[in-house]
Amino acid sequence: MRLGLIGLGKMGFHLGLNLMEHGHEVVAYDLSSDAVRRFTEAGGRGAASVAELADTLPAPRVVWLMVPHGKPVDDLLTAITPRLAPGDIVIEGGNSHYQDSVRRAAELKERGIHFLDVGTSGGIEGARHGACYMVGGDPDAFAQVEVLFRDTAVPGGYLYTGPSGSGHYAKMVHNGIEYGMMAAIGEGFEILEKSRYDYDFAALARVWSNGSVIRGWLMELTQRAFEKDPKLAGIRGVMHSSGEGKWTVQEALELQAAAPVIALSLLMRYRSLEDDTFTGKVVAALRNEFGGHAVERA
Amino acid sequence: MRLGLIGLGKMGFHLGLNLMEHGHEVVAYDLSSDAVRRFTEAGGRGAASVAELADTLPAPRVVWLMVPHGKPVDDLLTAITPRLAPGDIVIEGGNSHYQDSVRRAAELKERGIHFLDVGTSGGIEGARHGACYMVGGDPDAFAQVEVLFRDTAVPGGYLYTGPSGSGHYAKMVHNGIEYGMMAAIGEGFEILEKSRYDYDFAALARVWSNGSVIRGWLMELTQRAFEKDPKLAGIRGVMHSSGEGKWTVQEALELQAAAPVIALSLLMRYRSLEDDTFTGKVVAALRNEFGGHAVERA
Amino acid sequence: MRLGLIGLGKMGFHLGLNLMEHGHEVVAYDLSSDAVRRFTEAGGRGAASVAELADTLPAPRVVWLMVPHGKPVDDLLTAITPRLAPGDIVIEGGNSHYQDSVRRAAELKERGIHFLDVGTSGGIEGARHGACYMVGGDPDAFAQVEVLFRDTAVPGGYLYTGPSGSGHYAKMVHNGIEYGMMAAIGEGFEILEKSRYDYDFAALARVWSNGSVIRGWLMELTQRAFEKDPKLAGIRGVMHSSGEGKWTVQEALELQAAAPVIALSLLMRYRSLEDDTFTGKVVAALRNEFGGHAVERA
Amino acid sequence: MRLGLIGLGKMGFHLGLNLMEHGHEVVAYDLSSDAVRRFTEAGGRGAASVAELADTLPAPRVVWLMVPHGKPVDDLLTAITPRLAPGDIVIEGGNSHYQDSVRRAAELKERGIHFLDVGTSGGIEGARHGACYMVGGDPDAFAQVEVLFRDTAVPGGYLYTGPSGSGHYAKMVHNGIEYGMMAAIGEGFEILEKSRYDYDFAALARVWSNGSVIRGWLMELTQRAFEKDPKLAGIRGVMHSSGEGKWTVQEALELQAAAPVIALSLLMRYRSLEDDTFTGKVVAALRNEFGGHAVERA
Repeated sequence: MRLGLIGLGKMGFHLGLNLMEHGHEVVAYDLSSDAVRRFTEAGGRGAASVAELADTLPAPRVVWLMVPHGKPVDDLLTAITPRLAPGDIVIEGGNSHYQDSVRRAAELKERGIHFLDVGTSGGIEGARHGACYMVGGDPDAFAQVEVLFRDTAVPGGYLYTGPSGSGHYAKMVHNGIEYGMMAAIGEGFEILEKSRYDYDFAALARVWSNGSVIRGWLMELTQRAFEKDPKLAGIRGVMHSSGEGKWTVQEALELQAAAPVIALSLLMRYRSLEDDTFTGKVVAALRNEFGGHAVERA
Repeated sequence: MRLGLIGLGKMGFHLGLNLMEHGHEVVAYDLSSDAVRRFTEAGGRGAASVAELADTLPAPRVVWLMVPHGKPVDDLLTAITPRLAPGDIVIEGGNSHYQDSVRRAAELKERGIHFLDVGTSGGIEGARHGACYMVGGDPDAFAQVEVLFRDTAVPGGYLYTGPSGSGHYAKMVHNGIEYGMMAAIGEGFEILEKSRYDYDFAALARVWSNGSVIRGWLMELTQRAFEKDPKLAGIRGVMHSSGEGKWTVQEALELQAAAPVIALSLLMRYRSLEDDTFTGKVVAALRNEFGGHAVERA
Repeated sequence: MRLGLIGLGKMGFHLGLNLMEHGHEVVAYDLSSDAVRRFTEAGGRGAASVAELADTLPAPRVVWLMVPHGKPVDDLLTAITPRLAPGDIVIEGGNSHYQDSVRRAAELKERGIHFLDVGTSGGIEGARHGACYMVGGDPDAFAQVEVLFRDTAVPGGYLYTGPSGSGHYAKMVHNGIEYGMMAAIGEGFEILEKSRYDYDFAALARVWSNGSVIRGWLMELTQRAFEKDPKLAGIRGVMHSSGEGKWTVQEALELQAAAPVIALSLLMRYRSLEDDTFTGKVVAALRNEFGGHAVERA
Repeated sequence: MRLGLIGLGKMGFHLGLNLMEHGHEVVAYDLSSDAVRRFTEAGGRGAASVAELADTLPAPRVVWLMVPHGKPVDDLLTAITPRLAPGDIVIEGGNSHYQDSVRRAAELKERGIHFLDVGTSGGIEGARHGACYMVGGDPDAFAQVEVLFRDTAVPGGYLYTGPSGSGHYAKMVHNGIEYGMMAAIGEGFEILEKSRYDYDFAALARVWSNGSVIRGWLMELTQRAFEKDPKLAGIRGVMHSSGEGKWTVQEALELQAAAPVIALSLLMRYRSLEDDTFTGKVVAALRNEFGGHAVERA
């Protein structure tokens, strides 16, 4: 299938290679002409603009967006929509908020354009060698492009999840689970690190990757990280986040769903962004006030 | 290798089959003569008592315990120790507290007997077809019986972790991580279940088991559970626990390690044991006192 | 001062009495004519409509709203604004979201009308005998009506907090703290209730109300609740909430502020609304899958 | 009443003054002869040793211990017990673990000596001007010395709580509640501090101390702390702890009581002791492994 690919960042670039490896013809565009050049050097076809990209595609056009969520997606949709026609299909494979996807699907539907919201998991390696997709939107549109998902996912690694928004919603929750799992793994090694025993963390992550109840890709990546840096001495424990964990907790609040483990995994990320906390200052000051306990001076 | 196996419960029985499948000669004992009979019917050799079991083993004797932690282990050690001689090796593969293992290793060492504390993961399927072992204790004793671990683990699935207690300590932390991971998965599906979308949970767990960041055995088991009961309608959400999660949190408290995700996964298990809480009664009563908010009557 | 009071619910009614007790002339309106009649029977003046209420007030008019947050406030503002003139002052004393207050203040400002967002604490007793106010908005408008706050608050119990929204923002955070404090008290009694000792809870709350570090109004209310029902046997531990705790946590998420204690106090309220949880079902199912641990049947 | 007082630290010294102010004759001992001298300068009587202290007391002797928990208490009991006779009463007013108190009461009972475990709250100010006591132990012994509690507590500020251990148990839970309340207050100000508004924290704590639902001594102390240092700029947010919060959480674990708010208030104290966390390093490393997200270099 010939398709357009917009966004050649870490995920989009490798997805492009993956698509081509499976015989698809990819015309790619990125804000960075460097990225486009690298893609053409890797055997792909480049476009100098969104317009050019759209014009090279046969109807019904298939355009796969792989760009940061929020304004970039809206800007691109604004740019490309005039070039699209009824029956065309936009695949939005980034990490968008599901409510944005619901809105965008409705807006494009007014022009007869299909919009599939696709949660993509598996990281960069997945994009390159076999990803995992959760796809929401019109089922017929999904059927038309299903081959793209089948070809670039691992076997069994894609699912039509239901109406618009359900793909990104599932991805949001997936990331919430991921936050919790990562925090659990991290806390486990925190305890080991403080313990009386001197474990070989890479070896422990390796053995836990083989046959244990907690085996899985995250544990394999833990092993890999420890193999590179046995005590992670070179890494600061600052845990950034890119939105979906927060959205999951926000959604839990809306649904009145008790999700303390996911919530705490997020709050501890926020805590890691601070060198000191005002909470701590207040508590230390109070201990001083009532009990005369010494405070540490700033 | 000929060895004794004490404890033919879910784990021990399947471990026995696994050992035999790999050519080891297993003499097994259990408090339940039924269990012993089933084991002999499955091709094993039974012993009518701990004494008989010990007497059938050539020196140096190897005895593998697979019984519930606490008193059962101590009782068995009391019973069998008089039958053991310097150089013999006791493998304790249950879920014991590591401090018990440190103590037991020291007690047996006074008689020249080696004690290996072995954390065993992988569940019943692992015991039968390939487990995961974390082994603490004397390294020479470990080397003498390493073949048993190699044969019954999955490839790469065993590790000598260090001095006495380190095997069970690693298993304790492993279970703490497991608690956190399971809670994260559960909370994710709780959100999905309350959401506006009507997901096929089994299909979602399947796609997440294939190529996603959160793929792993727990997700595969989630898939399996949903395939049996698509909305888990037949299961009450009462989450029992068998000790190691609690020990992990207790250890975190001793080490002053902040492990909120693991701690919360444990506390929510405790919460699930209650139909109502006194905390809730107090808060509801307070809301009524200051704001006149109606309480629900018991 | 003569002023209008809209909303004669639990808070508004008692505030009206409080205002009158301090010599203010209160013209009150409520959707319920019964409420208005009760207020006139208590010595107040009633109005049959918002229009009538506005018309009885001398310029500059002062109208105090004490109604549920959200639509009721907007509806009343829509109804009354045409009757107001530049220089008039609207006091909004309910539990509104601060962003609504920022918006409303801006809308009214276009007509030259002042809008004060007032967080009100102290419960029904406070409304009647001495409340606590946090007031945001135009400082001159505040100065014009400060006497109302001074007269109806406890000594020292009102504060001009800054620009529009700051009053309701402070009240929101106040309620977040309140959630955390109430949960802490509840959990303490939960532990006592499960303990080996048979405490007299009312007596304990009484002694803690006298001289302890944790003395305060909430502990006095705890005492009062236990004096009515020593084991709270008649109350179910269902903890409803009316919004501000949730807003506090949402705001913490926006600010990337780690507020785990407040967050958990909210999530445990949500948990209390459920008889069972899907999280629990998933975890119980998983324990069954890997370890053969029995589940409880629904 | 003439009594012995052992321990002239912050709490003991002020308690001694308080007792004398109410007409009691206090013979005091402390490891520090300086402390004893200061006490005699303040009008008290000093003893050069535990033995001397015991010898100056008329039978039945009353000795009040106000020393750090653990070994200091046991050492003093070992030293003084030989000087005591049946019918004598030891008041232990420190922050001991209730299980230690149960043990000590049993040990002293064998010699006919009464042991009252007394949880003392109210901080240094309370010790000096009116404390809060929770008293466990023999009810007759309590009755004999009740006057001491009545005189040095605020009105209503003492309670006989039941058998041995119940006083310190109640104090332990009191401190657990205190941890939760302090964390809630701290988190509230953390949110305010990060907010768009520029609050006067001292003024806000003052208004919350007057008429609000969350008024109480901790809020008054918050006000006092902010009056000294408006943004707590001179204080680091390192939150030390002295044991009882941890004991409360440990007890909650034993009782399988879900106390997440108290637990988190403790875990965040532990978190504040660290500049960086291993949990954070692992999570940051994992994000890098699967998504190529940059880590911050140590």
